[in-house]
Amino acid sequence: MQSQEQIIHAKWLITCEEDNKILENHALVLKNGKIHAVLPSKNASIQYPSATTSHYSQHAIVPGFINSHTHIGMNFFRGLADDLTLMDWLNNHIWPAEKQWVQQDFVHDASLFAMAEMLRSGTTCFNDMYFFLDATAQAALTAGIRAHIGITVIDFPTAWASTTQEYLEKGLAFHEAYKKYDNITATFAPHAIYTVSEKTLSTIKELADQHQLKINMHIQESRDEIEQSLAQTKKRPIRRLHDIGFLSPQVIAIHMTQIDDEDLTILQHTQPHIVHCPESNMKLASGACPVMQLQAAGLNIALGTDSVASNNNLDMIGEMRSAALLAKLQSGNPKAVDAEQALKMATLQGAKALGIEQMFGSLTVGKAADFIAIDLAQIETQPLYHPISQIVYAASRHQITDVWVAGKQLLKNRQLTTLDETELLNKAHFWREKIKN
Amino acid sequence: MQSQEQIIHAKWLITCEEDNKILENHALVLKNGKIHAVLPSKNASIQYPSATTSHYSQHAIVPGFINSHTHIGMNFFRGLADDLTLMDWLNNHIWPAEKQWVQQDFVHDASLFAMAEMLRSGTTCFNDMYFFLDATAQAALTAGIRAHIGITVIDFPTAWASTTQEYLEKGLAFHEAYKKYDNITATFAPHAIYTVSEKTLSTIKELADQHQLKINMHIQESRDEIEQSLAQTKKRPIRRLHDIGFLSPQVIAIHMTQIDDEDLTILQHTQPHIVHCPESNMKLASGACPVMQLQAAGLNIALGTDSVASNNNLDMIGEMRSAALLAKLQSGNPKAVDAEQALKMATLQGAKALGIEQMFGSLTVGKAADFIAIDLAQIETQPLYHPISQIVYAASRHQITDVWVAGKQLLKNRQLTTLDETELLNKAHFWREKIKN
Repeated sequence: MQSQEQIIHAKWLITCEEDNKILENHALVLKNGKIHAVLPSKNASIQYPSATTSHYSQHAIVPGFINSHTHIGMNFFRGLADDLTLMDWLNNHIWPAEKQWVQQDFVHDASLFAMAEMLRSGTTCFNDMYFFLDATAQAALTAGIRAHIGITVIDFPTAWASTTQEYLEKGLAFHEAYKKYDNITATFAPHAIYTVSEKTLSTIKELADQHQLKINMHIQESRDEIEQSLAQTKKRPIRRLHDIGFLSPQVIAIHMTQIDDEDLTILQHTQPHIVHCPESNMKLASGACPVMQLQAAGLNIALGTDSVASNNNLDMIGEMRSAALLAKLQSGNPKAVDAEQALKMATLQGAKALGIEQMFGSLTVGKAADFIAIDLAQIETQPLYHPISQIVYAASRHQITDVWVAGKQLLKNRQLTTLDETELLNKAHFWREKIKN
Repeated sequence: MQSQEQIIHAKWLITCEEDNKILENHALVLKNGKIHAVLPSKNASIQYPSATTSHYSQHAIVPGFINSHTHIGMNFFRGLADDLTLMDWLNNHIWPAEKQWVQQDFVHDASLFAMAEMLRSGTTCFNDMYFFLDATAQAALTAGIRAHIGITVIDFPTAWASTTQEYLEKGLAFHEAYKKYDNITATFAPHAIYTVSEKTLSTIKELADQHQLKINMHIQESRDEIEQSLAQTKKRPIRRLHDIGFLSPQVIAIHMTQIDDEDLTILQHTQPHIVHCPESNMKLASGACPVMQLQAAGLNIALGTDSVASNNNLDMIGEMRSAALLAKLQSGNPKAVDAEQALKMATLQGAKALGIEQMFGSLTVGKAADFIAIDLAQIETQPLYHPISQIVYAASRHQITDVWVAGKQLLKNRQLTTLDETELLNKAHFWREKIKN
């Protein structure tokens, strides 16, 4: 971390604070990995005469994106199987591939590869759920990206663990081993109501309270999930989770495409955070999270890409656009999820979901210096009337030129500084040659 | 046009013919602006020893995209007003801006700017509907792109024409003046049933028959359009158009988000071509064209972006992705509009809609050499199992490196060859400074 001040001048700073501000010709002053000051460019060099200086004169600087739901260990399965029904996709493609390939080195290489894609598209923090947690954590330490890593629990054996007990033990050992790292945060991640028993969920709830960890869970992703739950227990998943005291702001409820009135009452009462994954939900024909309805009920909504096996990219600009467009179609209201709201779902609201809004998610003095620069002077984003409109509705991720985490530049004029692209592509090719056969 | 043969080697040729083929390590041989041969790379240099040679060893080559619905004269209104209801957007933003700014030089500059964006994202042919047709045509001749230019007709005055008669006269004069150019094709473009009388539509139908021109029209774009028509005439627009003998394969029916059983019967009987604009329809909360249902009824469906005022981009890769994702959500079937179908909607099916499939829309010997190269060796599209999946679900338009029209390279390693980017950006800035005030 630099102890000297560093000034980052920008055409626009878009703060993404509650009362979002668009500051023209302003600068961020960085010190010790944090945002030390936000002020007009013309004052910055006077006030900090010995600071180093960089100019982003045609760029918008926004907080780094927080991708609130990923399975990055699957990144080498991108495009392996598309356009299939969920059960065909899982049973005949994804689960067999996972059974054959998911091991420590596979997850490490896939994670590193995903991090390259994330950094190249402005994501500085992600919230993952997969296996071989330390492989992903090691990759994150190499890349310099911030990782929330879910202790996946599932009531059947995988290459990572054989019993529920083993998932929990390995997960807690992971938490103990990595809690010293600023960039790594463990969470619990019971997979779903149809793969984890209520008894296990209660145990997880206790452990999460004890260790002060967040709990991620896929909840009410599809109509099938609801129907199966009703057939087995006469209750919808949200009702069942509420009945065992599972739901609270500690919970990050992922997908939530199916919401009825009783669900809404329970959600309003218990206030879990919601992660909306519009592209994955569309691609798997799962449904559409009723964002407007949930927002009106006071719930916080973050944004995630899900895995590249069901998206097929980790592009948060694309995901913001899809979230904005889908909300309008779904609600019949073109004012639903405007460009600024979409940007907040990808930044501050992601930080809130992960419980880290005190230090992340906006350009605020005292918060971590995690931010990105987007070049808006290209043909595709001109002429420009409103920078946020251009970012959400017109820009492509390739226009993200620079990315910083804790004040350290991880993408510099489109070049990764901590990762070797050629090496990563060679690894991807190596695994692809194995997997395709 | 070159008379010498030219060999374009590619990692993959994706033909987009009816029985689409993915040819690995194959080459296109070009001659006189056409595809002269398609053959394995290893044979190409032997059979054509004096040909010039280019290698695209990590690229997929596909037919140039056909953007089947645009209003490119609006390109300087990108992001001027978003997230508004249709009537607020039209009455308080778009129509006042058009009234104030739309003139010959404005449309010329905006068209040229749009063509730069289109060429940079792989579009080699577009089907437009706007005013000052010769301004757009002149821009197309400069850019080298293929333009289908709609003779807009609307029963009220604009800066382009004062009376219905004047729209038609100017339009036919345009057709006469430009029919000598290979790259320019006139069409009729009555705006919509709520802005053009049935009498005018009948006149247009007669003129279109006489001059053998296609007819573009916005049809059943939104629920409001249906309700207004029912209130005024007790008939839905499609019924009204059918009753005056308007519908046939000559007609390009744009949007079509609202379809009931009677509509479907009429459409099946009359077989107009359909242009699906998923992003514009979502952004304006108009609805979703029932693509699967229309396809099942034997209708041909093309893809369009609509204008950047309601999209806000001319990105056909993004539009294919949105079409594929939306169809799955809408139908509840994850197999709906697979990646290959989406790619065909953007190529061969576009050519069919425009009535030019004999010469365009696929990599077929004898057709025009209009094609693009997409670099799939980047982090975002690796590892690669199926090139079409990567193009539709993972690639960004910036991965389109090279674009040819009639065998002439209009984009070369991301650089435009016929247009000056700096000059275009200066023009955009010039107009923006006027418009914003």
